[in-house]
Amino acid sequence: MKKIINDVALVEDQMILGMVKAYPQYLKKLDGYNVVVRANKKQGKVALISGGGSGHEPAHGGYVGTGMLDAAVAGAVFTSPSPEPIYEGIKAVSAGAGVLMVVKNYTGDVMNFEMAGEMAEMDGIPVKQVIVNDDVAVKDSLYTVGRRGVAGTVLVHKIAGAKAETGADLDTVQAIAQKVVDNVRTMGMAIQPCTVPASGKPGFELSEDEMEVGIGIHGEPGTQRETLRPADEVVDMLMERILADLDYTGHEVAVLVNGSGATPLMELFYCK
Amino acid sequence: MKKIINDVALVEDQMILGMVKAYPQYLKKLDGYNVVVRANKKQGKVALISGGGSGHEPAHGGYVGTGMLDAAVAGAVFTSPSPEPIYEGIKAVSAGAGVLMVVKNYTGDVMNFEMAGEMAEMDGIPVKQVIVNDDVAVKDSLYTVGRRGVAGTVLVHKIAGAKAETGADLDTVQAIAQKVVDNVRTMGMAIQPCTVPASGKPGFELSEDEMEVGIGIHGEPGTQRETLRPADEVVDMLMERILADLDYTGHEVAVLVNGSGATPLMELFYCK
Repeated sequence: MKKIINDVALVEDQMILGMVKAYPQYLKKLDGYNVVVRANKKQGKVALISGGGSGHEPAHGGYVGTGMLDAAVAGAVFTSPSPEPIYEGIKAVSAGAGVLMVVKNYTGDVMNFEMAGEMAEMDGIPVKQVIVNDDVAVKDSLYTVGRRGVAGTVLVHKIAGAKAETGADLDTVQAIAQKVVDNVRTMGMAIQPCTVPASGKPGFELSEDEMEVGIGIHGEPGTQRETLRPADEVVDMLMERILADLDYTGHEVAVLVNGSGATPLMELFYCK
Repeated sequence: MKKIINDVALVEDQMILGMVKAYPQYLKKLDGYNVVVRANKKQGKVALISGGGSGHEPAHGGYVGTGMLDAAVAGAVFTSPSPEPIYEGIKAVSAGAGVLMVVKNYTGDVMNFEMAGEMAEMDGIPVKQVIVNDDVAVKDSLYTVGRRGVAGTVLVHKIAGAKAETGADLDTVQAIAQKVVDNVRTMGMAIQPCTVPASGKPGFELSEDEMEVGIGIHGEPGTQRETLRPADEVVDMLMERILADLDYTGHEVAVLVNGSGATPLMELFYCK
């Protein structure tokens, strides 16, 4: 495994420490937990909390700030955080108007966020949630029943977070988050596998002329392996699946292109 | 060569087109040239222009905008733009208060920016320049006489760009840019080589446990090849060279960490 690293057992802790140290004007860390919260807590506002496994940076800590998340909970790499840090995060950001949990559709995340939400409700904190499931590639997978939640989650953070910042109530913020979920679709591909530090080996192997289509954010294999094609054809292939899933005809659409953390920007910008 | 790509001959053109199409509120492209300029030209302000080879994204087009650059000129990958597009860029952004060229210290860039500046001066546009040479790794290299200009250039764009935005005159903006140049030092390392699309092959080879220390932004080999060490030791090794070059004792320091375009954020955040 070739990575810039100190200690496999400490990658998450050291990463969260560095993130809050780099941006103290925006971020704080909860003592004892890998939970990043806004430095400027705002009373009377619906609080948004999200999170999941580490290894998806800037998700989720990088989306904490004014107009987006109030807290991000980081599990180990590609592993759901347990209910306890989520519960601590909810209590820390609760500001009198309830808390919305934005959860990506992975079995562990859904279960642990739900449990944490119930614990917080027993403390009298109103908690609601949305489950993001934007990935059209697979219906059921190793990690999920139903569609997976992937990059489209960023748009939920952005749009629901902006609504919460205006002072909207919990039902309204949940409704707008759900509207984003209902309307966002994505699909991914990769030309290289990724390597989880704790495993030390790539999740799968690709030959020099192959791409993996429909890959998930944990580097789990996708729906098909094909010969690598020109960028435009790759985009056509992904768009065909996305548009077959939801008809965007007649609607304005926001387009999000992301490189899964290690694709040079040049390869994301091509346009004719 | 495994890259997401359409056509080796078109990577720069298609990248610039995509960049301005993605951010029309900030960026425009000059007809016929790979020159990105601010969408909101501001009269009476000193204009900043920079540029160089492509392949360093978000440099340089990504630094065009309010408080930073007014124009960025993109050459072919790792190749200086010729004087003509630089000259066209200068004319396009000149707004009555002169133009400052921020040039990284590579022989081709220095020569071509100087020639373009002279052409613009013959048109009556006052032009000044600073040469950025922040890289402490090597004194002379394949690409440069003297120290190379690398990531520290971003701080010149940011600080001199902010000064220009306040309405400062050309001499003042040049002086503050030069002050940044005089005080910024950087050094790089890499665990993988990069591949120029037109060549199709990595610039050098590293074995599974090796790192290249003192690497330049063109993937040119560095000063030494060593066994890959823990992140903290790598940082110590780079900092020792930086601090030996300039004594920062008693000064406040801004720290810039960057991943050369393809390093996951996690590997950049580690902190103890």
